[in-house]
Amino acid sequence: MLGNRLENVRKNKPLIHNITNYVTVNDCANILLACGASPIMSDDLGEVEEITSICSGLNINMGTLNQHTIPSMFLAGKKANELNHPIILDPVGVGASKLRTKTALQLLKELRFAVIRGNISEIKALALGSGTTKGVDAHVADIVNEKNLEETVNFAKKFAERTGAVIGITGAIDIVTNTKEAYIIRNGHPIMSKITGTGCMLTAMIAAYVAANPDNILEATAGAICAMGICGERAYDRLAKEEGNSSCKNYIIDQVYNLTGEQLEGGARYEMG
Amino acid sequence: MLGNRLENVRKNKPLIHNITNYVTVNDCANILLACGASPIMSDDLGEVEEITSICSGLNINMGTLNQHTIPSMFLAGKKANELNHPIILDPVGVGASKLRTKTALQLLKELRFAVIRGNISEIKALALGSGTTKGVDAHVADIVNEKNLEETVNFAKKFAERTGAVIGITGAIDIVTNTKEAYIIRNGHPIMSKITGTGCMLTAMIAAYVAANPDNILEATAGAICAMGICGERAYDRLAKEEGNSSCKNYIIDQVYNLTGEQLEGGARYEMG
Amino acid sequence: MLGNRLENVRKNKPLIHNITNYVTVNDCANILLACGASPIMSDDLGEVEEITSICSGLNINMGTLNQHTIPSMFLAGKKANELNHPIILDPVGVGASKLRTKTALQLLKELRFAVIRGNISEIKALALGSGTTKGVDAHVADIVNEKNLEETVNFAKKFAERTGAVIGITGAIDIVTNTKEAYIIRNGHPIMSKITGTGCMLTAMIAAYVAANPDNILEATAGAICAMGICGERAYDRLAKEEGNSSCKNYIIDQVYNLTGEQLEGGARYEMG
Repeated sequence: MLGNRLENVRKNKPLIHNITNYVTVNDCANILLACGASPIMSDDLGEVEEITSICSGLNINMGTLNQHTIPSMFLAGKKANELNHPIILDPVGVGASKLRTKTALQLLKELRFAVIRGNISEIKALALGSGTTKGVDAHVADIVNEKNLEETVNFAKKFAERTGAVIGITGAIDIVTNTKEAYIIRNGHPIMSKITGTGCMLTAMIAAYVAANPDNILEATAGAICAMGICGERAYDRLAKEEGNSSCKNYIIDQVYNLTGEQLEGGARYEMG
Repeated sequence: MLGNRLENVRKNKPLIHNITNYVTVNDCANILLACGASPIMSDDLGEVEEITSICSGLNINMGTLNQHTIPSMFLAGKKANELNHPIILDPVGVGASKLRTKTALQLLKELRFAVIRGNISEIKALALGSGTTKGVDAHVADIVNEKNLEETVNFAKKFAERTGAVIGITGAIDIVTNTKEAYIIRNGHPIMSKITGTGCMLTAMIAAYVAANPDNILEATAGAICAMGICGERAYDRLAKEEGNSSCKNYIIDQVYNLTGEQLEGGARYEMG
Repeated sequence: MLGNRLENVRKNKPLIHNITNYVTVNDCANILLACGASPIMSDDLGEVEEITSICSGLNINMGTLNQHTIPSMFLAGKKANELNHPIILDPVGVGASKLRTKTALQLLKELRFAVIRGNISEIKALALGSGTTKGVDAHVADIVNEKNLEETVNFAKKFAERTGAVIGITGAIDIVTNTKEAYIIRNGHPIMSKITGTGCMLTAMIAAYVAANPDNILEATAGAICAMGICGERAYDRLAKEEGNSSCKNYIIDQVYNLTGEQLEGGARYEMG
């Protein structure tokens, strides 16, 4: 039950270690608090092992990737793997530069991820080792639609098999899969693509859901993705005349703050594929 | 027509590369999305050339200037110049430290800017190579008023001639000029000076307008400045009792999100000088 | 009178130099503007001495502590001490890593602080040189309540004596003390613990109050803490149905923007201890 996944976050209050970008970091911290978790942001090589040790999940986000924090990602990641803490990867903009592609591939090689979440272009770039990512947005040619849905689910399952991670591909249609089962999710609203960091916030929230539900990472990830989509829909519905993407961002976090397990259960629109 | 300048942003959806500060970066990303552009923030030496290559404009902002990203500004800038992508400079706090003044002068020397936008103290510090900038705000003695307006326009025109850039001086009265024509703009609201990053957001938006309107950089810059001022006025008008600078910031971005070419056209208050 | 402390901020408009984290920096800048001060964020070794020289107070915040900005904290701090500018320390997460504990202890050794503000776990970790900080939140076992209040006030007074600083311990009950007097403050609302950066924002605001009221650092600090608590209460009261921590954050800053000396005076709930 997806609703229980949320309730476990509120019950367990997982502390999540975030090595993330400086663009959306405040929203990631506030959405973690909103969903019932607790955030700590820390990226210095001199402390990331200790910090990740007191947490119960690690969120690695590659936005504003830079050479000072890359070694911290590996160091924290190895410690988290050692402690069996789930690590979630958000390969922001992978495919847009060699630095991002190379770093992401090396992370995949050296670390064991519980979940990898990105847009379709990012996940393709990661799976193929190169890409046509247009900055941080998905390339038009890649976008998941009814025609290529089955093919994309199969692609994601294969990538899940290769990496051992649950794969989350998000966009207008979201796919969450391990090697066997797939959730095909149709929550959300187009305005979310006009708000910076909805992807980053979602990944942070996945880290919280997974840390609080270690027994079922697939369902926990699907729960977080449905929750984000539902909150996007509800936030959009609350927009007054003259309100736009900035108010909507605040309302999304507000909705996450107020969302109940029952609302998540009732609002989730998905099929298994 | 200023309204067309906005419509071109929504049509062309320019991807803007931002090397910027960590204070206002989230608002810059959201205002770029709000006006119809797409942001990417990236400052690592190992990727800025590639990132700027896939973009159509580069925004260099000197707030929280630091020695790790200065070389990235030069490297990205040279690549952008090579590709004839417009570069916009926001010399935040220039004059407040030797590091900022020296870096800004060196940027002017090595790069070709399409637009330079700052407050009057910053632009004076840049033009004179030294300054009395009080932190990131304009010095009282410098402020543009009806008495020194003509003189300031002439100063800006000369600086435009020397740099080859369109010069934007913003404050209660804004001046936008190349060597020949000047827009004198009277949009905006005083509360904007109580919101951190209205200048940074404006510069990011200028980058979007210029990238989408390469044929008329002067008018594109004036369009972005009028748009920001109008959105500031409209945002202020929406403030409820007990609302202040934080809600106003959100409402400004909301207004940018909703602004039409017609509203920009109708709301712009300027004369040519 | 606490109200006068606020009015002095609005009158003197102190410029505050912040060496702070990249998570809550935007909110710190906006709350400084809201209370009547002016912020500058700068952390590069090449400019921090000059920047702090043009300011009237220095706020050192250890969130997202990293090895590039630690030397800047010392350099700026020594210059501020030399110029007799008040320095405020927010030892975020001290006790959670050796890097944080070691850096904080070294800062205490080499610099003279006007005020040190943290949660009870941070202040204990600082006083004892080690700690059980759970990330950036106070440890449950440490929380100040009616039973341990007197003991905690005495502990804080002793730490004030040792450091020469006013000590601010904030939580459900706040304690502000020098060696002799203590304010025991009961303003605020639990939702504030669900908003990232309420502590950071408060410390920034203390820096503004202290810089504008150098004659009475104790009362200035108490004034800022009461102001933040009152604004938290008022912000919570404004929340509409479906609003949560994100809207509440904006409303807190809005309330700070609108707060009058009279409202501060009337809303402050404290006793001397």
